[in-house]
Amino acid sequence: MSALTLADARTIIAAAEKRADEIGQPMNIAVVDGGGNLIAHVRQDGAWIGSIDISISKAWTARAFDIQTKDLGDNAQPTQQFFGIHTTNGGKVAIFAGGVPLLRDGVVVGGLGVSGGSGEQDQTVAEAGAGAL
Amino acid sequence: MSALTLADARTIIAAAEKRADEIGQPMNIAVVDGGGNLIAHVRQDGAWIGSIDISISKAWTARAFDIQTKDLGDNAQPTQQFFGIHTTNGGKVAIFAGGVPLLRDGVVVGGLGVSGGSGEQDQTVAEAGAGAL
Amino acid sequence: MSALTLADARTIIAAAEKRADEIGQPMNIAVVDGGGNLIAHVRQDGAWIGSIDISISKAWTARAFDIQTKDLGDNAQPTQQFFGIHTTNGGKVAIFAGGVPLLRDGVVVGGLGVSGGSGEQDQTVAEAGAGAL
Amino acid sequence: MSALTLADARTIIAAAEKRADEIGQPMNIAVVDGGGNLIAHVRQDGAWIGSIDISISKAWTARAFDIQTKDLGDNAQPTQQFFGIHTTNGGKVAIFAGGVPLLRDGVVVGGLGVSGGSGEQDQTVAEAGAGAL
Repeated sequence: MSALTLADARTIIAAAEKRADEIGQPMNIAVVDGGGNLIAHVRQDGAWIGSIDISISKAWTARAFDIQTKDLGDNAQPTQQFFGIHTTNGGKVAIFAGGVPLLRDGVVVGGLGVSGGSGEQDQTVAEAGAGAL
Repeated sequence: MSALTLADARTIIAAAEKRADEIGQPMNIAVVDGGGNLIAHVRQDGAWIGSIDISISKAWTARAFDIQTKDLGDNAQPTQQFFGIHTTNGGKVAIFAGGVPLLRDGVVVGGLGVSGGSGEQDQTVAEAGAGAL
Repeated sequence: MSALTLADARTIIAAAEKRADEIGQPMNIAVVDGGGNLIAHVRQDGAWIGSIDISISKAWTARAFDIQTKDLGDNAQPTQQFFGIHTTNGGKVAIFAGGVPLLRDGVVVGGLGVSGGSGEQDQTVAEAGAGAL
Repeated sequence: MSALTLADARTIIAAAEKRADEIGQPMNIAVVDGGGNLIAHVRQDGAWIGSIDISISKAWTARAFDIQTKDLGDNAQPTQQFFGIHTTNGGKVAIFAGGVPLLRDGVVVGGLGVSGGSGEQDQTVAEAGAGAL
């Protein structure tokens, strides 16, 4: 299984940016490798500065637990089995939509995080990005 | 679009203090610039020391997401789309009333955060401050 | 002994700003009370954003140890008795010039921190501010 | 003075990557805007994961104090005027070579940080990147 490269990350980011442009919402987009370590991040012009950290956290979370952050979020609500997980790992765990695992031949090789709009907007941009791998 | 100056921040703070005096609740008041960086902070005599940090976080949050913190709070409740956002960004995200974006000619140029009373009190003081710009 | 008020802090800051203007170096200026808690902060237009935190840390340090930060710094060099103190207290201890205790009738009632120029510049602005109390 | 855009950041990063390739040392390269907030980051294939954070810190530091990090480092050695500055600002201050301010028409509009090799290697890559703006 070949590791995620910077070229891969750029392909993913380009596809995510294209979708963000289509929906007219500037985004922060981050890609991490299989070790959860940042490969690349971009903030589109006009995107929220508060979303820089969140995009990276979503990417890390998606790889750290091999799960979409929106699905983790369902399990992280009060009374659910993982409630409280958002304060573990030094606060790096994001539990709302926009983080997706990156797969190659069915194996998780990294994570993609998108932040800058509504949960629905972040999710569609993340899915467009992940689909490009 | 001209950047927020210290003179602007003082005008905003003076208006906020006037409103805090009217309602008889001493406040912490903080102003950040367009990059989210603190320009000025004051703690009125008798205001809570726990609110120093909160006022600065509210100001930062209002600029970081170009939103009033009370509105962000509505979306940050359990089961809502941004639940968990209060633990991102190193804990700098405030999700209760009292933080408002600062606009000049319709463009966000900074943020104002007020903390020291009830949510309603913080909000009215913040609105008075922001209205002075 | 009366506690330091916001009015006191403003008097101190005004004197510090006057000196900063005289030497032509924009500064961050912070005042803390006897409990080490921030009363007021200002960043003059053009002052370094990296100095926001440092001005507050200098003010806190000057009160926390009732000492000028430049004097603490002499004792905090390698091989000196307090080497390493800058990493205590969550990193809030500043060990270079620009932080001075604030005295009323010979008693320390707070701290003033100035950051934005050379050590010499920070120190002269801090002394001007403290002298106004 | 127009703000730094993502397109600007990509131009800068492309020039930095070109220089890194020439010297055969993979690098982390980060660009921040005038508020010190990340616009873009890339980690070239094979570059140290420990340098992700350092590249971002160097970019932030160069803007936060409008100085090259290697020059700040000279002033941050034991007995020098800024010794201890590396533990301020939550540890975000980098005091070794590889961070340079980004100027447009003589005004600092952001910062560039490079990390992944020796100080000399980081510096030459940073200079190549900054020169492209």
